[in-house]
Amino acid sequence: MSVIVQKYGGSSLADIEKINKVADNIIKRKESGDDVIVVASAMGNTTDELLDMAYNISNNPQKREVDMLISSGEQISISLLSIALREKGYKSVSLTGFQAGIKTKGIHTKNKIKEIKARRINKYLAEDKIVVVAGFQGINEKGDITTLGRGGSDTSAVALAASFNTKCEIYTDVNGIYSVDPAYYSSAKKLDFISYEEMLEMASLGANVLETRAVDLAKKYNVEIYLAASHENEKGTYIKESDKIMEQKSVTGVTVNEDVLMISINHIPYSPENISLIFQKLAAKNINIDMISQTPPEKEKVNITFTTSKKDLNEAKQVLKKLKKKFGKIEIEIDDSVVKVSVIGIGMRQQAGVAAKIFDIFAKNNIEFKQVTTSEISISYTVNEKDRKKAVQVLGNEYEL
Amino acid sequence: MSVIVQKYGGSSLADIEKINKVADNIIKRKESGDDVIVVASAMGNTTDELLDMAYNISNNPQKREVDMLISSGEQISISLLSIALREKGYKSVSLTGFQAGIKTKGIHTKNKIKEIKARRINKYLAEDKIVVVAGFQGINEKGDITTLGRGGSDTSAVALAASFNTKCEIYTDVNGIYSVDPAYYSSAKKLDFISYEEMLEMASLGANVLETRAVDLAKKYNVEIYLAASHENEKGTYIKESDKIMEQKSVTGVTVNEDVLMISINHIPYSPENISLIFQKLAAKNINIDMISQTPPEKEKVNITFTTSKKDLNEAKQVLKKLKKKFGKIEIEIDDSVVKVSVIGIGMRQQAGVAAKIFDIFAKNNIEFKQVTTSEISISYTVNEKDRKKAVQVLGNEYEL
Repeated sequence: MSVIVQKYGGSSLADIEKINKVADNIIKRKESGDDVIVVASAMGNTTDELLDMAYNISNNPQKREVDMLISSGEQISISLLSIALREKGYKSVSLTGFQAGIKTKGIHTKNKIKEIKARRINKYLAEDKIVVVAGFQGINEKGDITTLGRGGSDTSAVALAASFNTKCEIYTDVNGIYSVDPAYYSSAKKLDFISYEEMLEMASLGANVLETRAVDLAKKYNVEIYLAASHENEKGTYIKESDKIMEQKSVTGVTVNEDVLMISINHIPYSPENISLIFQKLAAKNINIDMISQTPPEKEKVNITFTTSKKDLNEAKQVLKKLKKKFGKIEIEIDDSVVKVSVIGIGMRQQAGVAAKIFDIFAKNNIEFKQVTTSEISISYTVNEKDRKKAVQVLGNEYEL
Repeated sequence: MSVIVQKYGGSSLADIEKINKVADNIIKRKESGDDVIVVASAMGNTTDELLDMAYNISNNPQKREVDMLISSGEQISISLLSIALREKGYKSVSLTGFQAGIKTKGIHTKNKIKEIKARRINKYLAEDKIVVVAGFQGINEKGDITTLGRGGSDTSAVALAASFNTKCEIYTDVNGIYSVDPAYYSSAKKLDFISYEEMLEMASLGANVLETRAVDLAKKYNVEIYLAASHENEKGTYIKESDKIMEQKSVTGVTVNEDVLMISINHIPYSPENISLIFQKLAAKNINIDMISQTPPEKEKVNITFTTSKKDLNEAKQVLKKLKKKFGKIEIEIDDSVVKVSVIGIGMRQQAGVAAKIFDIFAKNNIEFKQVTTSEISISYTVNEKDRKKAVQVLGNEYEL
């Protein structure tokens, strides 16, 4: 008999009916002969509703108290789920983060799991109980309740799976990982398998299905993740080590990130100090820079273009104003009508010419791009908003996604 | 500098506006120079709403899971209250039952406080923090979250006051203890003082302001309670040791209990065994008997009348049916149109003739009563529903309540 970890997200637990369905799903697994550890998120929008209350009292609620507040959400979902399992005739027990031995460290609302002391979980599994653990939360060395940040329940589930040296099934409201977001490319195919590396690129590049941290942790401890829809029988997607995946396509997926603000600073007096200063000033305001491109200096002047999040617009404007004062005749352009299209595939490592081929596809289809950046397994382009759908479609068709 | 315990009920914390008002009230106390421990109940109807969810899943949810579920309610109110205190510029910290060191024992949903390990509370008080503790909950020796039953927050507050050898202020939605429920007697006076004993009689006889357990605990550890409205400046009522109360009136209060079912069993073949059998059968069905009266045996037959709660009607009928089978020709009467009017006063101990005087008052006013029982400091009568108001009024007028 082996242990399996199943994780259910908030949308799968949004009401009593859904909780009962999740209970049925858990029971099916239990009946197949496995011991089951369930990790549950808070019901529906509970966490946001609780946060709203806190922010109605204070614009800057103390993070320790926020953790105390929002951790109540999972306490509700785990007890109701356990009650549902018992009502259906199965032995079960719910455990908060601290009861499950999930020790964390770091700053409140963004804690990291330090270790899991699974004594109580083991005891209950030995009693043939289904153990329902509160995701997203733990306890720090001071005895304060902590939370792991958005998507933290995925991290809890993967950490538990790592601790029990087993697989992790994540049930959510999407039925798997798609090569391209179906919103952009209606004939997008669901992937049977994806490697940790590709999933990490997909997640950080805008496919918000799984938290990057959870995938990172899974990669580190080699935890196989199975991601599927909670209330459907359709097959989902396995996320695992790349060399366990037989067929390696050169391109696995295409993602689109809409939250792009492209800023160009032209005619900067060229010196490494000046360039460094620009990015220091931006960093001091916590403005996260994504893509950067720089033209070769010409007549002792240089042009720099970078992208950031649209929400940083006001902060960025302040920095740019100060830079203008300092550098005098620089020229600033802000463009919020671009998006980032990324092409991802672990096969790129072995197959040369992917970038060249994509340039060719874009040229043939009159898709203009402003910037290009590459990582080992991805290539990203900023394109005009209006070309977004076309870009995704021609790439999807070319790579049979 | 001394420590004071303040307790705020759910209706005083029902929304953000009320939470802010409670925070102001706490700050006033802190500014007066005292260290403050606050005990908070769950906001408004949170506990009932959570219970509704549990009972929507199961008619018989496991009590351990119910405790896990409903204890989340105070976690929400304590963190929000702490956020409000900090927003107003005061250092504060919230603690769940287990973090506050409230150790309990017994059966889930009805635990009793075993001891309080106040290490963390002391640490935070030493740091000049207002300590906001979750009422109603604790942790048992297995590490499971427990709750103390309805009104348990009052008990938490009194237990903390006992542990810190100090007074307990209980803020609620009534502005003190009245000699008579103003619903029955509009000119009822608020009491400045009441003894533990009288309060216990009032509580168990139907004046549901303070949980009996909390008063019992206060009496045991000699904790002075001050009960007042949370959002008014009006003076409340002190509940304390009787010999600390200067003026002792013979009658302090009158209470009315509407939940009375009066059952008479007539012509029972007289034997102590038969009488015993009747009450054994009722006890076996968990039917709680309140007042009992028995006529002297006549022709080897005896009549017995007792009262119980209206909700026990069906169970009682079943028992009576079986008794009829056994005893043959007994006659059964069930009357649900009576109420119990109780007259309470610690002065009765010293002053004879209170019962005689009340009989006289009732006779003069044509108030018929069916049963009388007496305790050391109270006399209770069952009267017809229709005479309820008149009975309270004539008693209120006589004793200037």
